[in-house]
Amino acid sequence: MNRFETDLLLIPGPTPVPPPIARVLSEPAISHRGAEFAEALGACTAGLMTAFGTEGDVIILACSGTGGMEAAIANALSPGDSIVTVEIGVFGKRWSDIAGRFGCEVTPARFEWGKAAGPAALDEALRSAPTPVKAVALTHNETSTGVLNPTRELLAVARSHGALTIVDCISGLLATEFLMDKWGADIAVGGSQKAFAIPPGLAFVAVSPRGWEAIESATSPTFYFDLPAMKKTAEKGQTSYTASTTLVRALRVALDLLLADGLQAIIDRHTAMGTAVRAAVAAMGLKLFSDEAHASNAVTAILPPDGLDPDKIRSDLSKRFSIVFSGGQADLKGRIFRIAHLGPIEPYQMLGTLACLEIVLRDQGYTAFPPGAGVAAAADVLGRATR
Amino acid sequence: MNRFETDLLLIPGPTPVPPPIARVLSEPAISHRGAEFAEALGACTAGLMTAFGTEGDVIILACSGTGGMEAAIANALSPGDSIVTVEIGVFGKRWSDIAGRFGCEVTPARFEWGKAAGPAALDEALRSAPTPVKAVALTHNETSTGVLNPTRELLAVARSHGALTIVDCISGLLATEFLMDKWGADIAVGGSQKAFAIPPGLAFVAVSPRGWEAIESATSPTFYFDLPAMKKTAEKGQTSYTASTTLVRALRVALDLLLADGLQAIIDRHTAMGTAVRAAVAAMGLKLFSDEAHASNAVTAILPPDGLDPDKIRSDLSKRFSIVFSGGQADLKGRIFRIAHLGPIEPYQMLGTLACLEIVLRDQGYTAFPPGAGVAAAADVLGRATR
Repeated sequence: MNRFETDLLLIPGPTPVPPPIARVLSEPAISHRGAEFAEALGACTAGLMTAFGTEGDVIILACSGTGGMEAAIANALSPGDSIVTVEIGVFGKRWSDIAGRFGCEVTPARFEWGKAAGPAALDEALRSAPTPVKAVALTHNETSTGVLNPTRELLAVARSHGALTIVDCISGLLATEFLMDKWGADIAVGGSQKAFAIPPGLAFVAVSPRGWEAIESATSPTFYFDLPAMKKTAEKGQTSYTASTTLVRALRVALDLLLADGLQAIIDRHTAMGTAVRAAVAAMGLKLFSDEAHASNAVTAILPPDGLDPDKIRSDLSKRFSIVFSGGQADLKGRIFRIAHLGPIEPYQMLGTLACLEIVLRDQGYTAFPPGAGVAAAADVLGRATR
Repeated sequence: MNRFETDLLLIPGPTPVPPPIARVLSEPAISHRGAEFAEALGACTAGLMTAFGTEGDVIILACSGTGGMEAAIANALSPGDSIVTVEIGVFGKRWSDIAGRFGCEVTPARFEWGKAAGPAALDEALRSAPTPVKAVALTHNETSTGVLNPTRELLAVARSHGALTIVDCISGLLATEFLMDKWGADIAVGGSQKAFAIPPGLAFVAVSPRGWEAIESATSPTFYFDLPAMKKTAEKGQTSYTASTTLVRALRVALDLLLADGLQAIIDRHTAMGTAVRAAVAAMGLKLFSDEAHASNAVTAILPPDGLDPDKIRSDLSKRFSIVFSGGQADLKGRIFRIAHLGPIEPYQMLGTLACLEIVLRDQGYTAFPPGAGVAAAADVLGRATR
């Protein structure tokens, strides 16, 4: 954080928190058992239903996204249940880890990092799983590699096998299309620190009627994440245990601001920003780490030019220009850098960021592009999108 | 202001207010007669002495910069006193208006707008004034035209005629060199909403021993702006009338942040930013309104390309990109637009702004520059400045 605290946070969550939301965060605490909170919780639930594309229930939990993922597994599965997990990166693998911890029989469908999962390969994994598959868990938008899965197609495959479908759409929700009911997801998980533009601390778990059926018969132990108990309390405008009252109030303000022009406007903004960043990457002669056909509009993973250290690019951007990118996770540590374009990022912020990236690359010896070329390519996209 | 309140304010004051300063502004009120305020007032006075380059007194007033200008005239001059005012724009003319209102005999030394005042011409004006000249009032940095006067030389000329010297350095202080004691200014005026990065509401009046002498014998009526009374109260850690306590506390935080690396670092930052913007203007084939040899590093006045309306450029930037420029004032209304680079503006913000300006110019039909050229020229300057 620089002296004036004007760092630009371009990591795939937490995103920058705009002033109208920051103001709510600094307001006095309210009771989690009072009418004011009940009203906010109700409004948030309605907004989240729009975000998930569901007429089903959405439960708001006081935990990170991973807590929401555990809630999905612990509520819907029993020890010994067979689950196929779709692994295209760090967060796909997390489904395997959680399900394994709860005693499920896990069959990971693994794909090369940087690629999307193939529906045919998933079909094959489901056919060859050792026992009848109870559930499929997958990642909608894989943050670690900047890949958007063909979630609709993957869900269709899973449903054709009668599997319960569980989706981590934490980093994709609002940033990219996700239609829970239409696509046939049974349990879907979101998180507050992504395109919602509020701080971390809330997870959202959406459950379809089919999801509730599965939950009813499952036997895994869970107390804090007891979804049926939460649903019952939510009907009274409360949460089972102490709610993150201030975050819920911030979420309410955020959803009002975000949904004012409709869901599609938010998605369009993310699409333009993702397209612009990829255009800049190409114009600078850099390489995307991931398959462009399945590029995420929330985060872009980039391979540094030969001989450059991605973490040195990141530290120079931070020290010289107060701009914060993410590095690679797990096996990708030291191999890529990631620019998030998630949440309330303005075009001037991204264009300025790309100009600073050009400076840093040039100063580190990579000069294989005309100065300003990256910015101009992105400006072309954002110019058209704002016309 | 856009929905997320992330407008980028690039007008020559008020500047953006960074979070650490905004936080102070939201703190509970304190007494203007208590020890906490006295401590803050003392710290501010010390910081302002550094900003003005003076060992003399600096008085903090609860008013805008214009109030500080009135304080200078009303305290130091008497009806009938002869004053030469240096007019190179809107704010130079303001000296004439104020002095005229207080019954002074005003001889304006007028210069073409966009040009700096010439020391020889000032000398000539002083020689040809109808009566012996008591004072000279001038503008250090003329905000309306983006011109920095050769203040040091102008002050030397005024002093050579024995005149009391009064300087409006409201928009120049901290952004560009000003050495009150060394250059021989007797009364100098600053304002809070400029490079100090706090909201409007405070003026600063610095007074040399020679200034106090003049004040002692002057007879113009003033009550709210009674500088000798203010000086006496300030010695007790108070202000004569109710102080803007919250702004004073914000100023204290701002001065701590700004002066942490020394005065020269702030000036260097403004110099780089001004140079970068002018480089971009040239690379885009645009024309500076003002004489580049006397260009301000706080604000740049730009002529729109032939056939384009500067106010349409501004409104497009505001509507499409949430970036706010200033237009022309007085005779310059509808003829120029002004980009301020004053206060806590980060390189990525200015580079992104220039990219958005390129988009708007192009969309309005001005394509006489290669896309990205303006940004690249500015990036070249800012890259070197941050190395």
